[in-house]
Amino acid sequence: MTVYEFAKGLILEAGGQVRSRMDESIQVETKSNPNDLVTNIDREVENYIYNSILDTYPDHQVIGEEGHGHELTQLEGFSWVIDPIDGTLNFVHQADNFAISIGIYKDNESYAGFVYDVISDTLYHAKKGEGAYINRQRIKTVEQTTLKTSIIGINPNWLTRSKSEAIFKQIVADARSARAYGSAALEIVNVATGKLAAYMTPRLSPWDYAGAAIILEEVNGVVTDLLGNPLSLIKPSSVIAANPQIHEEILTHYLSHHNEDISAFHQYLNSK
Amino acid sequence: MTVYEFAKGLILEAGGQVRSRMDESIQVETKSNPNDLVTNIDREVENYIYNSILDTYPDHQVIGEEGHGHELTQLEGFSWVIDPIDGTLNFVHQADNFAISIGIYKDNESYAGFVYDVISDTLYHAKKGEGAYINRQRIKTVEQTTLKTSIIGINPNWLTRSKSEAIFKQIVADARSARAYGSAALEIVNVATGKLAAYMTPRLSPWDYAGAAIILEEVNGVVTDLLGNPLSLIKPSSVIAANPQIHEEILTHYLSHHNEDISAFHQYLNSK
Repeated sequence: MTVYEFAKGLILEAGGQVRSRMDESIQVETKSNPNDLVTNIDREVENYIYNSILDTYPDHQVIGEEGHGHELTQLEGFSWVIDPIDGTLNFVHQADNFAISIGIYKDNESYAGFVYDVISDTLYHAKKGEGAYINRQRIKTVEQTTLKTSIIGINPNWLTRSKSEAIFKQIVADARSARAYGSAALEIVNVATGKLAAYMTPRLSPWDYAGAAIILEEVNGVVTDLLGNPLSLIKPSSVIAANPQIHEEILTHYLSHHNEDISAFHQYLNSK
Repeated sequence: MTVYEFAKGLILEAGGQVRSRMDESIQVETKSNPNDLVTNIDREVENYIYNSILDTYPDHQVIGEEGHGHELTQLEGFSWVIDPIDGTLNFVHQADNFAISIGIYKDNESYAGFVYDVISDTLYHAKKGEGAYINRQRIKTVEQTTLKTSIIGINPNWLTRSKSEAIFKQIVADARSARAYGSAALEIVNVATGKLAAYMTPRLSPWDYAGAAIILEEVNGVVTDLLGNPLSLIKPSSVIAANPQIHEEILTHYLSHHNEDISAFHQYLNSK
């Protein structure tokens, strides 16, 4: 069995465990702020995935949202970057619209990405160089679009804070419309399937995008930070995931006017 | 067969027709502005529903988004308020996340509401006084929540225009988080199922909310305009759909400070 096949079985198994526990009373705690939630299910699913990987591949590295591998400063050999529940607010409030995300890198290069929409039982997956899939259906190469005829993904919250408002407001105003789904992994795979032309946010952690980014790149999509630089797999970052044409348009005509604000935001993120 | 049973069969049949035509090339035109789209499918589905109703009930009134009954100034007897495709932008760009909406009123009182999420094949429906359902599953009475621990629905676009920004910005800032799905009918039924605690917008037409409002009210939810007044079935309106506690909180602590802005918005809507 390849690492890809092993990971595919593992994420489906973990998702089945989550579904089977949706009727349980869930223990919710807050993390960095009152709206940053974690549950016992997040922790238990991360532990399950972590232990399963190391049982089979003792020499693999694992970074997970809920605590594993946060001491790592570089990735070597096979490295897994996992989010046991991406969209924890949706998990807690909606019991829907959340995903398990796994990105696997080999010597710092993309190897395979998985995003599993647990309630709809939809697996987005890609092995580098072999195309991306929704379940067994091949995802087509992304279409090229312009902002004024595109639907973009961005959380309304970012338009209520002065620094991020300055960066994003005109982009939202000039887009055809905007959506917000509450799971970065699902929003980035929505860019891969064309449901969104672009998705933007000033602040994500590697586990939020590591899996979905590989899927998007496999269909010719582009993922960078808001300055146009490659994303880190170790540190938090701003993110724009988009089809190539709108990615270029947004970077050139909008974000490039705010490079100082964006750089300041990055410095703030890395100081935390 | 009751009017309720007839309507239920009709909306499922219309949705099946839409699904069967998703692979066709769709003809898209613009209406009031470049982002207000209509397709041949919107028009054909409205005609199908309109003709089916009048074939069976020649004395019923029908108001539809794509042109039927716009001359009506009051509702008498059985009146149907229909949106053949609510979320046309999603229909065009996503081929998903749109709904057929039907609200039926009898002598100006709620009779039955239907919102059919066509691609997921999920029918939300309620007959006044008999409870609301997702397919065959009863929807529970909405929970009472407060803004700071709630997810609300609002389109980011409204935070980019100065008048609506003034009304909504602080509400979004104080909420736990916000979502935007792009179909008013689906967002209002999301309030009914508790996925959203509230949904707000400065501008909808009766066909956008007529069906979903009946479903929400059947589970103890509240739908009014942003001044707290009952919604019109004839004229466009602002809308807040919410559980009773957060509806009261948002009206009292936020919207009541903007009554002049909201009234001006209503006058503008009614002058169009």
